[in-house]
Parts: sequence; C-alpha cells; structure tokens
Amino acid sequence: MQKQFLKHINSPEQLRLLEQDDLPILAQELRDFIINIVATKEGHLGASLGVVELTIALHYVFNTPKDQLVWDVGHQAYGHKIITGRKDNFDTNRQFKGLSGFPKREESVFDTFGVGHSSTSISAALGMAIASQLKGDIDTQHIAVIGDASIASGMAFEGLNHAGVTNANLLVILNDNAIGIDPSVGALKQYLTNVKKGTEKQDNIFEALNFDYSGPIDGHDLPLLLSELERLKKIKGPKFLHVITTKGKGLRQAEEQQVTYHAPGKFNKDTGELIAKISTTQQAPKYQDVFGYTIVELAKQNENIIGITPAMPTGSSLKYMMEEIPDRAFDVGIAEQHAVTFAAGLATQGLIPFCNIYSTFLQRAYDQVIHDVAIQNLPVIFCLDRAGLVGQDGATHHGVFDIGYLRCIPNLIVFAPRDEIELRNIMYTAQLGLKQPIAIRYPRGRGVTIDWKQPFSKIEIGTGQQLKKGQNIAILSIGNMAKTVMEALHLIENQSDFSHYDMRFVKPLDVAMLHDIFKTHHTIITIEDAAVKGGFGSSIAEFSAEHNYKNKLIIKGIPDQFIEHGTVEELHQSIQLDATSLSELLKKMTD
Amino acid sequence: MQKQFLKHINSPEQLRLLEQDDLPILAQELRDFIINIVATKEGHLGASLGVVELTIALHYVFNTPKDQLVWDVGHQAYGHKIITGRKDNFDTNRQFKGLSGFPKREESVFDTFGVGHSSTSISAALGMAIASQLKGDIDTQHIAVIGDASIASGMAFEGLNHAGVTNANLLVILNDNAIGIDPSVGALKQYLTNVKKGTEKQDNIFEALNFDYSGPIDGHDLPLLLSELERLKKIKGPKFLHVITTKGKGLRQAEEQQVTYHAPGKFNKDTGELIAKISTTQQAPKYQDVFGYTIVELAKQNENIIGITPAMPTGSSLKYMMEEIPDRAFDVGIAEQHAVTFAAGLATQGLIPFCNIYSTFLQRAYDQVIHDVAIQNLPVIFCLDRAGLVGQDGATHHGVFDIGYLRCIPNLIVFAPRDEIELRNIMYTAQLGLKQPIAIRYPRGRGVTIDWKQPFSKIEIGTGQQLKKGQNIAILSIGNMAKTVMEALHLIENQSDFSHYDMRFVKPLDVAMLHDIFKTHHTIITIEDAAVKGGFGSSIAEFSAEHNYKNKLIIKGIPDQFIEHGTVEELHQSIQLDATSLSELLKKMTD
Repeated sequence: MQKQFLKHINSPEQLRLLEQDDLPILAQELRDFIINIVATKEGHLGASLGVVELTIALHYVFNTPKDQLVWDVGHQAYGHKIITGRKDNFDTNRQFKGLSGFPKREESVFDTFGVGHSSTSISAALGMAIASQLKGDIDTQHIAVIGDASIASGMAFEGLNHAGVTNANLLVILNDNAIGIDPSVGALKQYLTNVKKGTEKQDNIFEALNFDYSGPIDGHDLPLLLSELERLKKIKGPKFLHVITTKGKGLRQAEEQQVTYHAPGKFNKDTGELIAKISTTQQAPKYQDVFGYTIVELAKQNENIIGITPAMPTGSSLKYMMEEIPDRAFDVGIAEQHAVTFAAGLATQGLIPFCNIYSTFLQRAYDQVIHDVAIQNLPVIFCLDRAGLVGQDGATHHGVFDIGYLRCIPNLIVFAPRDEIELRNIMYTAQLGLKQPIAIRYPRGRGVTIDWKQPFSKIEIGTGQQLKKGQNIAILSIGNMAKTVMEALHLIENQSDFSHYDMRFVKPLDVAMLHDIFKTHHTIITIEDAAVKGGFGSSIAEFSAEHNYKNKLIIKGIPDQFIEHGTVEELHQSIQLDATSLSELLKKMTD
Repeated sequence: MQKQFLKHINSPEQLRLLEQDDLPILAQELRDFIINIVATKEGHLGASLGVVELTIALHYVFNTPKDQLVWDVGHQAYGHKIITGRKDNFDTNRQFKGLSGFPKREESVFDTFGVGHSSTSISAALGMAIASQLKGDIDTQHIAVIGDASIASGMAFEGLNHAGVTNANLLVILNDNAIGIDPSVGALKQYLTNVKKGTEKQDNIFEALNFDYSGPIDGHDLPLLLSELERLKKIKGPKFLHVITTKGKGLRQAEEQQVTYHAPGKFNKDTGELIAKISTTQQAPKYQDVFGYTIVELAKQNENIIGITPAMPTGSSLKYMMEEIPDRAFDVGIAEQHAVTFAAGLATQGLIPFCNIYSTFLQRAYDQVIHDVAIQNLPVIFCLDRAGLVGQDGATHHGVFDIGYLRCIPNLIVFAPRDEIELRNIMYTAQLGLKQPIAIRYPRGRGVTIDWKQPFSKIEIGTGQQLKKGQNIAILSIGNMAKTVMEALHLIENQSDFSHYDMRFVKPLDVAMLHDIFKTHHTIITIEDAAVKGGFGSSIAEFSAEHNYKNKLIIKGIPDQFIEHGTVEELHQSIQLDATSLSELLKKMTD
C-alpha cells in the first residue's frame, strides 16, 4: 500500500519534513482531496487542480508564513488552504460561517492578503516587500502568483511598472494556463502563446520591465519547479517565473471542459461527470440568460447594438451574442476600465453599447463611468449583473455599493427590474434612443417568471408602479426585493394596511408617485438589497426633507458592515432582509 | 517682413492649403500665440509648447474631423484648439463660461472625446475605430496622442492589449518627453529611455502587443513628422509611433524648469520670467503645504509612516517628504489603483501609509479602497486633496463625489478639516494607531489660518464641534464650508437664531451631538462642498429618519449636475453655495 502523507500534514512545516521524492505522491493526494470535497460541496475546481504542484513547491521551498505568498484572485488557493491547517474544516468551504472560498487574513497567517478581485497580488506583495526592506530584512521573500488573464489587467501592469524600479525581494509567478474563467484574450495572451512556442525572443516584456525573467517551465514537473524556486530564492530584487500549467489538471473532464469545470457544481468524484440538479417544477430563467437572449433578440433588430463584457462571457451570458453576432460582441478581458471607455468611444459614433459588468467589478471602472460616460452624457447602457448579495463568493463579491456610488453621478439613470420581464423591457427601452446613460442592476441567479419571453413594452423613464393598494403604510421596494415584500405580505393576515410600490428607478425618482405616497400614508418603508448608507432609502429621506414631509420613514437594506459568505437566503436572514423578518416588522407596526 | 499664416487659419482645412515649407513658420506663430495668451491668462503651458509641430502635422496630414484625434489628458491641446476655430476666443480659456482647458465634445467637432484624467485616449479611439470598421468604413483614421506618463497607467495598457488583437485603424502616438506634471517614473519609463539611447532592441514591448511600431523620431522635426505620418496613414490596423519631444519647447525657462512651467501662472511673455503674485497681507498656507510639511514632521517622529503619491509629488506637496525622507516616500506614477493596494500591502506589515490622492483621482481606485483596504480593515490613511470644487480645471476635476462614494463603505472613517490646524491634528491622530482606514478630504489652495503650525492635539474620532451657540436653527457644516457659514453669519444682523456646528466626521457621525441638535432646534441646515445626492446632508436625513425626528431639514451642497470651470468663487455663486447666498437664505428663515 502506498504511503499516505496528506493526512499527517497540517502545516507547511510538516510538509517540509518530507523527502522531495515523496512530493509527487502528496500532489496526487492533494488533488484527490480537492476533487472529493468539491464534488459534493461545490466550489471552484479547475484553478486549484492546476496549481497543486506549484502550491506544494512554494510551501516546500519557501519559509511560509515568514516568506509571504499572495494568491491573485484566490480561486486557485484550495490546495494552499488544505496544507496550511484548514484540511479538517475544508468541507465548510464557502458555507455560511465556514471557510471563505478565497484567502482571507483573519482565517490564517498563511493568507497574507485577502483576495477575490483580480490583479491585486503584485501591488500587495510589493507593499510587503518594501516593508521588509525598510525594516532591514533582506531575506524574506514575497511571492505573487498571478494568472495570465489577471496579469493582462491594467492594475497588474501598474504593479509591475513600479516593482521594476525597486530592488525589493519580489517574485512574480505567472501561472499561464491561457484561461481565466473563460479563455484569455488580448495581445498579451497572444504574446505569451508565442513565448511558449519559442517564436518570441526571450528578451521579453517582463525583462523590459526590469524583472529577472525565467521560464517558461512545466508547472506540473515538481523537481523542475523545486530547483527553479530554489535558484530564484537566492536572487535579490524583482524576479519573474513563467510557469505553464493546465487548468483542471488531473481530472479529464476538467481539463477538457475548462470553462464548465471552473466551478462545476456537484459532480461524480470518480467519473468526473456532472450531477444535474433535478427540479420537479419548471424553473424561472436566470437573469443572466434573460440578458443574454434578449440582447441577441434586440441586436438582430437594431444593428447599432454592441455587447461588451470584461472577461465574463459565460457568467454574463453575453456568450450567446458572441456566438450569434461575433462582430458586435466583445470580450475585452479583465479590463473594466477599458470596457467602459471603449463603450464611451463607441457611443460617440452613434452605436449603442450594452456594457455588462458585475456590480462589484464596476467598482474598477468608477472613474470611467463618471469621467468618460456621464460627464459627456453618452448613452452607454450598463448592465450590472450580480447586484445585491451574491452568496458563497462573499464579501469581496457582493454587489451592494452600486446604488450608493452611482446615485451621486449626474445624468445617469439607475434602474432595477423586479423580474425578468422588466429586465427585458428596460433593455428594449434603453436601445430605443435614450439620450443619457443608464445603469440596470439585477441579481445573480433565477428570477420569478417562467413565462418570461413576452413582447417588448416601453418603460417610461422615472416611473414607479403600484403593485398593491392599501392604506396607512407604504412599502417602497427596488428591484427583486419586490418579491420579498410580496412574500412578507402573504405571511400577514390583515394586509389592508399596506400599499406596495415598485419604484423601479432609483434615479430619477418618480416624484409624482412619491408625493402621492407621502400624502396618503403615515409611514413609508423602503427596502433594497444594497447598502443603506447613501442608498435608495436614503434618496427617499432626501426627498422627504426636500418637501418637508413629516411621515415616519423606515429604511431597510444592507447594514453598514461587510457581509460574509453563505447562501443568499442565509445572508438575508442574518440581516433581517428576508420575507419572514419583514413580515414580523410589518405585523408589529399594526399591532 | 515674414509672412503671417496663423491669423488666416480658422480651421484645419485652411491649414492644409499651406505649403509644407510654410509650416515651420506657422509653428513659430502658434508657439508665440500660446505663450502670449498663457502669459497673461494663465493655464497649462509646457505640454502644448511641446506638441506644436505634432499638432500641425496631425491636422495637416489627416483629414480631421473625419479622421478622429483624441488627446490624452488634454493639457497639450491648446494648439489644437487654436487651429480648430477657437483662436479668437482662446483668451477665455479656463474662465467661467469661457473655453474649457481640455478638449470637450460640446465645444467643437474637432474635440472627439472629452478628456482631463489620463490614459483614456487609447480605449476611446479604439471604440471609434471599431465603430468605423462596423460601418464598413476602412479609410477613417483614429489617432490617440498619449504621453509617456499616461501610457504607463494600467488603463492604457488595457487599451493596447485589446487594440493589438483587432485590425482597427488605430494610430497610437507616444509623445515621449519623460515627464507628466512631474518627471515620469517606473520601469516602462526606464525602458523608453533605453529605447531612445538605442540600447534596447527594437523588437519591443509595443511590437510584442501586435502594434506596427515606428520611431523614435524627433517630434520637433516637421518634415520628418509629415513624412512618417503620411506613411502610417496608408497602413491598416493598429500602429504605434514613438515621438520624442521637449516639454516647454521654445521657451527657455519652460524647457529648463518643466515642472514649474507645466502651469506657471502669469509670466513675462518676452523674458519668460514668472510674475510673482503680490500680496499685501500675510497669507494662510495652502492645505497642500500643510499636508506636506506635517507629514515630514510626523514621519520624523514615527518611523512607520510612509508617503505615497500617484504622480503628484509637486501638486500634493509630498515632494517635501521625498526630499527629506526619500526611502519612505513613493511616487508610483499615474497608478492610483496600484497606489492604494500597495498602501494596503504596507499596512499589513504594520506600516502607516499616508496615501495622498486627489479626490477626483481616487475614483480610479474605488474598488481598491473597498476590496483591498476596507474589507480587510487596514489602517490606510487616505489624504484626498482637491476635494470640493477645484476651479478652472472644471467638471473633470471637481472632487465632489467622494462623500457619496465613500460613505457607503463599511469600516471607513470620513473626515473633513475646517482649517489647517484640524488637518494637522487629524493627520496626527490617524498615525497614533488607528485600527481602521480613514479618508481625510480637504480643498485645493489656501486655508484660513496664518498661525497654523500649532502643537498637535488628538481629535476624538466621531466628534463634532459647536462653533456658535444659538437657538431654533442649527447649521451643520462639513470641512471648509465652516468658513462660508461664518462669513454668512457675519452678514446677518441678528445671529442669535443660529447655532453653527462643524460636524467634522461624515462618518461616523457624532450621534450624541446630533440628538442634542435635533432636540434643541426646529430647523437643521446642512452645508457641504460635495454632491447632495448621497452626501453629508443625506446622512443627516438618514439619521433623522432612523430616530423619527420631525425637524425641518434643508440640505445645501453641489446640486445634481456637472459643474463647469471658473474660479471657485464664481462657481460657488453660480450654485448659491457662497456666503452671500447662504446669508440670504438664513435671513429669509427668520423674517
């Protein structure tokens, strides 16, 4: 029987006691461990399988946690978590109150920097390296492991550009597998492909930026990795190691279907086959698919429509347009800043860009929204996917600040559909010749309407809708919180006290409707799946102040704290933003 | 007598009627024209002097405005403005209701894209180029002119990375003068220097990104520029021309003192000598200098303090620390994203980074503030320079959204000093061992306190100050609006109705003080030099709603529109945010 190593390893210190020859066995065990857990508990698979050998080699050669390791994005850090003391509770990964799906400082001293969004690792590791230098520590090593999709993002270039003029002990490891979540794109990716083929001179981009470049080497060859890292450990200053890996390495399907097996859901750990979720009832579609199918439908009628995604063709479902109308659908890579200003450039020429960016990632292009789109009042249509709480990805990925950060921007319309039909109709409305930009925020996952593909109908900008007529107390919801309100009302016997309005537009507000509401109800409750500080409810408080209303106003939403990971339902319960909590609040008000 | 060309040229069409041999004379005239106007009217000098030949050559060779020209940042576009129909009103440049200091779409069809912030030109021009391609237009050329400081910013790299895999008719012209506002920094700058010296192979970074690279050529050699642009005009797809210029070309002092003559204020047009502003009274210092001197003072006492600026050592006055303590003061170039995450990396190691970024430019690093600093609750100290209206730079540069976009971020403290002493004291307080991040916003220019260098005193986080005790009406100001309130009160005979509070902290609010205020005054007026949507006043409206107060609440600040350029005084008057307007409002309330 083969030796078993993994079960004895609870820290890199124990790992370092193994013989080098034993490490390939450990790699196999680690790979199996990851597959076994992710098969049943779900999570990100392909990225971590691809860096099993690199993970082992890094912790074996370097003196972590004194030597500091920063994983870019962090999808690939499962192996790292498992061998740094979190093996026994790794089955709680991404669950409510369980381990985070990403490296996180409060979870372990081995997680030197919390990640989630891409391309931060070089800057963070350089900060650590400069700190060591200032403290007179010339031995500690600082390592950023970054993928080829992430290194093509502007922020990574900024980090390289600074690092190259320091003599900090920084090792950047390019984990080049030619894919992020979707296949990598862009000129740098082509360049890296040429480097791998040997058709590009070795006097290369990274050397031009003053890095001591080595590679490309096979990232699954443990002895080679070990010897190269040992060599690099002795070199001072900024160093760059180009490592070639295969995403999903070791599981056939994951290697062959890299996009699907990025985060495959449940699968058979032995055969690798996906386990389809069984639903006994017909399901409403994902908002993402409603976006994806609708933009194709509209783009066939309106040849000015352009689709843009920064590296999320699958996640956003823009892939449908990329397949059907490839000339007018662009995956620009992890480049949110460029995506927005590129859209602005297109809009100056009369084209109609739908720029689809996850709410949390639009934070990366905030200046471009203000400076390149809104100041010039260009009618770019922002589709903000994954607005609100996103679930298991947790604090780094919740799309809860968008209302706050967008509402202060002049010229910009901000809309949230309460269901799929509203999403379709606002997309239809936006491409009819809007004279200003609009942001449409909608949540991750399934909506509420099975029969969603209805004929288009135009939405009047700045108008809300009364969904239920009552008296005394008006509930004002935005976006898919309408569903929560309706569910809460169903839990209440006497509903006659309550009116329910879907305000739809955070901006411009339906002022006429608001005056009517404030005049006919003594209490107003606002509810939103966004931060309450500066959010939709705040805009109602501003309205109330402006017109000197004295109604009681209750603002419900995401409290002023970062929300962790868990299912959306668990998280909503934890902050009393679920239907039951809301119904209890409503009941109290009429007691 | 020499021929005179410039006075006959009101459009590039007329320019194109000249003989090539006449263009050097025109260049001299254009240079003189710029010097003459800027000498008396002030503005940006050096950048435009550096591209006089390039400006003429571009409009001569290309068929503008059909061929589309995007100037990055736009400081260098004075020559462009003058020969595209704005010669006769160029003396209104940067004045209230006059020409904008930057290219602006609504000003001219030759201004294809509004600019101000750096590094947007490649993305915007690529959008235009792709639009042409989709319309079947294969002849129109799209040209981005970008400096070596701007091209080192991440966003520019994102644009290059996308452009390199298109066959769009895009010409990127690198205007390489080794300086932005301050001298350029970073590995790319070193690389470009090597290219210029011929020590770097011509198989270079831009070729690696699939651009057809040519240069470097002398950007003041008109015949060479013309022939090279003529050649490039015939080449399809993405092209890159590397042009070497001298910032300030043609005015000795401007060439020799490039930082000073970036925007020199008034000077003698014949001798080039600066005309010192004469003040008959002793002046309060600039907030910038208070920051600059204070960080040096603190850093000498606390060796953990680090200073960081993204390319604004002179503007921010971090240069004082860079001169005195160079090891701990970093100019990272135009790289706000990197600056923030680099600061976060330093903070993980117990260092205390003061990250000084103009309010308007922090928009570029919004995600990094949330994702890398606030989620991890790292005590980075953000000094947001040029908060509020900045004056002549106008809409692209006003720092008015910061309260809105920062207030929704958990963990972050937001403070605004009302004077220089408060700025010093909050800087002192922040480095004493704060356990969370803080943003300190302060305005451009001079404060109010001549005797500003007082001993440090600690500010209790979350506490406001009562500046004047009155009854009935409470005025709550934030930051330097305190001065406006005091001036307004001086214009009123009966001041006993009014209390005045400097709330100091937008977050956390001084809740105890607010309860006291709401209980003892029937009316509350908030005043801030930031957008009212989601701003400080909005936070008071939230407080009022939360505690069910019925007081009248009036919110004053920047209305929901982009504010143009002019002096800060003119702009404040135009939106009734000046002392006179405020005093009239106050008088009405007591009539």
